[in-house]
Amino acid sequence: MLLRREDMHPSVSDPEASSMNFLNEIANRYPNAISLAAGRPYEGFFAAQDIPHYFSRYLEYLEARKFSPTRMLMQYGRTNGIINDLIAQMLAKDEDIRVPNEAVAVTAGCQEAMVIVLRGICSGPDDVLLAAEPCYVGITGAARVLGIPVIPVPEAEGPQGVARAAKAARADGKNPRALYLVPDFANPSGACLSLGERHQLLAVAEAENLLILEDDPYGLFGLDDRPRPRLKSLDTNKQVIYLGSFAKSAFPGARVGFFVADQEVIDTQGNRTLLAEELSAIKSMLTVNTSPVSQAVIGGFLLQHGCSLRAANADRVSFYRENLNTLLKALGEHMPEGTTWNTPAGGFFATVDVPVIADVALLERSAADYGVLWTPMSFFYTKGAGQHSIRLSCSYLERNEVTEGVRRLAALIADQLAERDGLGNRAGAEG
Amino acid sequence: MLLRREDMHPSVSDPEASSMNFLNEIANRYPNAISLAAGRPYEGFFAAQDIPHYFSRYLEYLEARKFSPTRMLMQYGRTNGIINDLIAQMLAKDEDIRVPNEAVAVTAGCQEAMVIVLRGICSGPDDVLLAAEPCYVGITGAARVLGIPVIPVPEAEGPQGVARAAKAARADGKNPRALYLVPDFANPSGACLSLGERHQLLAVAEAENLLILEDDPYGLFGLDDRPRPRLKSLDTNKQVIYLGSFAKSAFPGARVGFFVADQEVIDTQGNRTLLAEELSAIKSMLTVNTSPVSQAVIGGFLLQHGCSLRAANADRVSFYRENLNTLLKALGEHMPEGTTWNTPAGGFFATVDVPVIADVALLERSAADYGVLWTPMSFFYTKGAGQHSIRLSCSYLERNEVTEGVRRLAALIADQLAERDGLGNRAGAEG
Repeated sequence: MLLRREDMHPSVSDPEASSMNFLNEIANRYPNAISLAAGRPYEGFFAAQDIPHYFSRYLEYLEARKFSPTRMLMQYGRTNGIINDLIAQMLAKDEDIRVPNEAVAVTAGCQEAMVIVLRGICSGPDDVLLAAEPCYVGITGAARVLGIPVIPVPEAEGPQGVARAAKAARADGKNPRALYLVPDFANPSGACLSLGERHQLLAVAEAENLLILEDDPYGLFGLDDRPRPRLKSLDTNKQVIYLGSFAKSAFPGARVGFFVADQEVIDTQGNRTLLAEELSAIKSMLTVNTSPVSQAVIGGFLLQHGCSLRAANADRVSFYRENLNTLLKALGEHMPEGTTWNTPAGGFFATVDVPVIADVALLERSAADYGVLWTPMSFFYTKGAGQHSIRLSCSYLERNEVTEGVRRLAALIADQLAERDGLGNRAGAEG
Repeated sequence: MLLRREDMHPSVSDPEASSMNFLNEIANRYPNAISLAAGRPYEGFFAAQDIPHYFSRYLEYLEARKFSPTRMLMQYGRTNGIINDLIAQMLAKDEDIRVPNEAVAVTAGCQEAMVIVLRGICSGPDDVLLAAEPCYVGITGAARVLGIPVIPVPEAEGPQGVARAAKAARADGKNPRALYLVPDFANPSGACLSLGERHQLLAVAEAENLLILEDDPYGLFGLDDRPRPRLKSLDTNKQVIYLGSFAKSAFPGARVGFFVADQEVIDTQGNRTLLAEELSAIKSMLTVNTSPVSQAVIGGFLLQHGCSLRAANADRVSFYRENLNTLLKALGEHMPEGTTWNTPAGGFFATVDVPVIADVALLERSAADYGVLWTPMSFFYTKGAGQHSIRLSCSYLERNEVTEGVRRLAALIADQLAERDGLGNRAGAEG
C-alpha cells in the first residue's frame, strides 16, 4: 500500500519539524563545525554510571516506606506519577511554589506536559492559544498535532501586548484560553520578564480570563543570584500552570517532566476537582503513565540533593554563566560594525541582528566555508519575521569553542558585508 | 481561576476513562476482593533488582560498539528510538516479520504508538477509524483525544463485516483509513482469527484501501503451540501497521512499546520515504523521544534472551496457559445453568454471558457481598451493547484465586437468578 503524503496529517509536514530536521541534517554533514545551534545541555555534568546509582537511591526510599519496588516500578502505575511528593518538595524549597502533591502530574518530558495541558483546556473550534513570539517550536508543534490555532504575541510588547492580543482574538470570534511563554531566559530570545512585568502579566491574565502556561527549563541559570520569582510563586489567583523539565537540571534522557495545575475545576453539579487530576484522563490516553523506571532515576537524583535542583545545579550554574559571559564578550570583541545583539540575564541563548539575510542558504555557507552552525531566528516566527536575526546557543560547548565559534560567525558576516558593499571576497575562515 | 468542566476537552470526561476510574476506585474500596477484572501481568516474573542488571547488559552492548553510553542514554536522542535493531531482530526471529530497522519506531508504551499512528493517518474531518467491537478502550480513548471518529465493526462478523463497514462508511461520506483489531486473543473478548480469516482480512484491506492496525500484546500466550502467524508476517502488500508492547512480555513499567510501519509514503515530487520516518515528526511533538533509560532496560532484556521474546517468555507462557485452563475449568464446574462462556485459544481473557444485567450496580454488589471483581462488557461497546456479558481476566492471580473467584461469581449469578425467579435470597458468599 502506497500512501500519499498529502493525505497525512499536516503535523507530519510541520514547518518547525522540517526546520529542526534541516538543522540536524546540516550538523550531520558538517560534524566538525562548531555548533552555536545546539541547545542541548553540556555533557560534562552527567555520566551513564550515575543512573543505577540514582535508581538504587530511590529503591531504598521506597523500601524504607514499605512500598514494593517491584510493584511500584515495574507494574502499571499511577497515571499522574509516583515522584510527585519529591517534586512538590523541590518546588517549595527552590521556588517557593507551594502546592499539594495531587496538583503535580509527572509527564514523559515537558513536551507531553504541553500536549496534555493544551488538549485539556482547548476544546471548541474557536479555542486558541496565545504564545509569545519568537516562540519555542515545541509548543507550536504540540498545538499543530492537536489542531489548536496559535496566535503570536510579540514578546517585545510585554503584558500590554497580551491584553491587546486577547481582546483582538475575542473581537475576531476566538476564545483565547491561555498564554504560553518562558519568563526566564526564553528560547530563542533569551528575554526575561522584570518583576513588574510579572505582576502586570498576572493581572492581565486575571482580567482577560487567561491561563498562563509558564515554561521554565532555564530559570536556574541566571547570570547572577538576583531573585526572579516564578510566575507560579506569585500566582494568588491560580492563573498559572507551571511546566517543569529535568532536561537541563538533571539530564534529557530521563524524559521526565511535569506540570503543576492546582486550579479547581467545577462540574455542573458543583463538584470540584483539581485540574491536574482532571487532566490525568488525557495522560492515560497518551502514554498511560510516565515510566516509573525513569521517574525512579529522577527521584533518586532529587533525593541525592535534598530535593533541591538549585543545590544539585551549583556547578552547572557556574558553567553556564561563564559560557554565556564568554559568548557576550566574544560578540563584543569580534562582531563587525552594523551588527547588534541582546544581553540576556541568563540562560542558554542570545540573539544577534545582522544586516544580511540570515537564512538557510547563509547557514549552509557558514557550515561549509566557516565551520560554524547557528539557528536562523526565522524558524521561531509564524510569519516570515526574523530574517535578519540569528539565535546563538552556548550550552553545549567548551568556552574556547564559544569564542572560536563567534570569531567564525563574525568573519562570515564581515565577508557578507564586504561582498554586499562590493569590497571583494575574503577567504573562508575555517581553520 | 475556576475552570468549568464543560469547557474542557471531551476526552477529559471520556466514558471509557470514567469506566476505568470506577474499576480502580471499586478495587481500592474492596482490596480483599479477588480481582477477575485486572488485566495486568502476574508479578512473579519480574523483580526491581532486574532493572540495573538489564541496564548494564545494554551498557556493555553500547560500549562494545564504541558508542558513548552517556550520550546515547542521557542526552536528547533519536526520535524513533535506539533499540530498533534489537526489536527488528526479535520480530524476524519470533514472528517471521522482516522489516528494516528504520521501519520500527520505539514509543512511550504501545498507547503512544496508537496515538502517533492515528494522528498521522487521519487528517481530514471525514477520516474515520474502523475498530473491531467489543473494543480495547485504549484505541477509542486515543481516537477521542485526537477527535477522530471510530466506527465499530462487530467482531463476530469477521472480514466480511469489515468490508461491509468500510463500504457503508464511504456511502455515508466518510473516509475509512484503517481498521484496528487484536487478532490474537483480543482484549476484551479473547477472540482469535483463524488462518483463513487472516488471509481474508488482508484481501479486504487491500480491496478497501484500508490500513490494518494489528495490536499484539497477547500473541505469545496461546494455549497451544499451533502457529498463528501475525497479519504483519503475511502482509505482502504492506497493509499492516504492527503495534507492539513489552508490557506483558517484559514488564509494564518500562513504558516501552513500538510500531512497525514499512509502508512507503510518496510526496507530490515523487520522493519516497518510510511511514515510520514520516511519523517521527509527530512523535517529536508528543514526547520528543522515548526514554533511552527505559529503552536500555528493554534492550538489555532482549539481549539477555537472544532477542527472542518467545525464549524469554517460556515460563510465562506456561503460567498463563494454566491460569486460562483453570478459569475455563472453573466456569464449567461452578457457573449456574443459563450462563454461557467462550473458550479462547489463549490470552488473558474470557467472556461470560449471564441472564441478568451485568452493570456497575451488580459489580458493586459482587464486590461488597461476594468478594469478587470483574468487568462489565458494556464498557467495551460504543452503544449500550454487552449488558448481559462479563469480562474475566486470569492474568494477575494465583491459580487457586482464579478458581475461588469463579466460585464467588457463580454464587452471585445463582443468587441473582434465584431472586429473579422469586426463590428468595441466599446469603452472600464472601469468606
